[in-house]
Amino acid sequence: MAGQAHPVSPLALPLPEMPPVPGVRVATGMAEIRYRAREDVMAMAFPAGTTVAGVFTKNRCPGAPVEWSRAALKGGKARGLVVTSGNSNVFTGRAGRETCARTAEEAARILGCKPREIFLASTGVIGERLPTEKLVGALPKVFAAVAETGFEAAARAIMTTDTFPKGAVRTATIGGTTVTIAGIAKGSGMIAPDMATMLSFLATDAKIPAPALQALLKKGCDRSFNCITVDSDTSTSDTVMLFATGAAKHPRVPAEGGAILKDFARALNEVLMDLALMVARDGEGAQKLIRIEVTGAVTARSAHRIAMSIANSPLVKTAIAGEDANWGRIVMAVGKAGEPADRDRLSIAVGGVWMAREGGVVDGYDETPVVAHMKGREVEITVDIGLGRGKATVWTCDLTHGYIDINGSYRS
Amino acid sequence: MAGQAHPVSPLALPLPEMPPVPGVRVATGMAEIRYRAREDVMAMAFPAGTTVAGVFTKNRCPGAPVEWSRAALKGGKARGLVVTSGNSNVFTGRAGRETCARTAEEAARILGCKPREIFLASTGVIGERLPTEKLVGALPKVFAAVAETGFEAAARAIMTTDTFPKGAVRTATIGGTTVTIAGIAKGSGMIAPDMATMLSFLATDAKIPAPALQALLKKGCDRSFNCITVDSDTSTSDTVMLFATGAAKHPRVPAEGGAILKDFARALNEVLMDLALMVARDGEGAQKLIRIEVTGAVTARSAHRIAMSIANSPLVKTAIAGEDANWGRIVMAVGKAGEPADRDRLSIAVGGVWMAREGGVVDGYDETPVVAHMKGREVEITVDIGLGRGKATVWTCDLTHGYIDINGSYRS
Repeated sequence: MAGQAHPVSPLALPLPEMPPVPGVRVATGMAEIRYRAREDVMAMAFPAGTTVAGVFTKNRCPGAPVEWSRAALKGGKARGLVVTSGNSNVFTGRAGRETCARTAEEAARILGCKPREIFLASTGVIGERLPTEKLVGALPKVFAAVAETGFEAAARAIMTTDTFPKGAVRTATIGGTTVTIAGIAKGSGMIAPDMATMLSFLATDAKIPAPALQALLKKGCDRSFNCITVDSDTSTSDTVMLFATGAAKHPRVPAEGGAILKDFARALNEVLMDLALMVARDGEGAQKLIRIEVTGAVTARSAHRIAMSIANSPLVKTAIAGEDANWGRIVMAVGKAGEPADRDRLSIAVGGVWMAREGGVVDGYDETPVVAHMKGREVEITVDIGLGRGKATVWTCDLTHGYIDINGSYRS
Repeated sequence: MAGQAHPVSPLALPLPEMPPVPGVRVATGMAEIRYRAREDVMAMAFPAGTTVAGVFTKNRCPGAPVEWSRAALKGGKARGLVVTSGNSNVFTGRAGRETCARTAEEAARILGCKPREIFLASTGVIGERLPTEKLVGALPKVFAAVAETGFEAAARAIMTTDTFPKGAVRTATIGGTTVTIAGIAKGSGMIAPDMATMLSFLATDAKIPAPALQALLKKGCDRSFNCITVDSDTSTSDTVMLFATGAAKHPRVPAEGGAILKDFARALNEVLMDLALMVARDGEGAQKLIRIEVTGAVTARSAHRIAMSIANSPLVKTAIAGEDANWGRIVMAVGKAGEPADRDRLSIAVGGVWMAREGGVVDGYDETPVVAHMKGREVEITVDIGLGRGKATVWTCDLTHGYIDINGSYRS
């Protein structure tokens, strides 16, 4: 969680070309909140009529910006977004709430809107006061620079221990009109999103009522960000927001959404999944991306819990770091999930090769193809519980010395 | 979880002098189950009338020996115990069950009792068949050697990745008569006991009916083994058993126990706590023992869950390895527990120094004494939730490169 540079993850993907989203103006700037000579403020300005959806951490000790944005979301309208990195403004008491109010008031003054139309997010160290004057003082210059450009610089300005910037773009049609969905994300450690994730911001030029937008975003996050984990630690700042400017000219979307948004939902889910997998790929110390598919559980929820139990097991993650297809540890992690499971019906495959079936090792099991699979950058684990039809897929990374290096070093 | 030697934990304690427990005959031997030239079988023989209590893992994929012993416990009587290390006989299907039956039958034949009076436990690698003939073949020689001696050799024979043997002894009086309670334990990784723990075996010469013995053991484990965690991974083999030979001459203890066992319960709890803390001190890679006390939660159960959330957080554990009193990560771990908590009432102390109170850092907080405390071998964290009167204390160890070294290396 420290701010120093780490080697780029071997699982990194290049940032795709990111076209502007009509209506969204974006800029980055320096407030020197924690880092020197690094952009640490990202701002967006939206046209009147922009709707917004958001999902936030379920951590019971959320940061002040999470509380601000959660409250602002009730209005369903957005005109501005201010994101800072280096200090998360979490566990900062009344001072933290005042920082949020002052920031929103200044942004609202500049943009000519209500403070409740300004959304906030911060990421970085917990428990230290965010230097309000530096941030508020930087806002006029940052907002003066907003322009309808792509999100490349924005993706970089929100990084903390991230080793590469994360972005994704898709187009979709609504009633025959093409719209764009673009998103960026940051996240590397303290990743075990619970109904939300690290910071991620998406924008579209579609015109979608806030209730429909919210329903799509929530459903999409459940299948993407809520299916990744790096270290089982749920952040106090997890935030995903989606802004819809309405700049595109397409048929009217009803408040409840519906069939007209089918292609939009497909594209949104793809953007969310791209971003979520990039966060897993940038897990602190990650050397391997791990896909865990659980089938045959009693329900989908049960399958998800079992998959997360495997994904969060330090013993499974260190075994994979050591390129050891240690199915015994997978059995342990299935059993500790507390979900219905019958050891004697359990089957386990790695890299598509069934190693264990119905409670024991497969007769004549040949480890050779599994050993070869384990040496790769992407490892696939499949577990069939053998009890029902519930299934789930989650992604994580391995647990390596790099994680200890990053998190065992002193903050300063 | 591999069998190779690791440096002795810097938190190790010496094995206390262990007197014989009247009535308990013990021996160790070599069956070469996995290790060469190392004792890997431990056996105990008990006189007729010995009662037994046991608590076992709640992992849903338990090992065959756990299932055997859990079933045998219904009789409440014990004449023999066979424990092996190197192979846990977990996820071994029908072959694993047959190994248990054959082992118990052979031990019963030698001791002249029923197979259901023989208790079994195994620890070691998961998913590989235990070589039944080697084990059964070794039993006559092992049982021929049993003698009424202390448990030093037994404590060594049940080790796997343990770096030091673990034992504890206390005396207690029952109706004016002195009795002895001696116990041994093994455990270092895959430690997050759920109603039980790693392998631990205790014996006493007291004469206590099985129902009273069971009640005391369960209560004692809840306060000791169930309050430690190394890596959040709950083993498939966790087993704690207590055997009472009845060799001591004290007034009759009723089936329901009661006041006559007050001092016995005190001594039993001390033995269990000693053993549990030794397991935490031998956590894989451990450099520091961490005590986490949570007060002011809405219930004791809620306090325990919050304490365990802190104890299992990789970010808290790596911060402590780095000697960083990073209270922000503690706030995160409190919040992610999902239990009632109010960020603005939360207070956090490290080494007895309150760093954060009521939602923010303490004014004029001086880090000096905390930094000094963090450099020691034992770290104390106190969290006051500020909501109620529920409290709990748990113990864990830090997360270091040693854990990755031990668990990221290939099994063979």
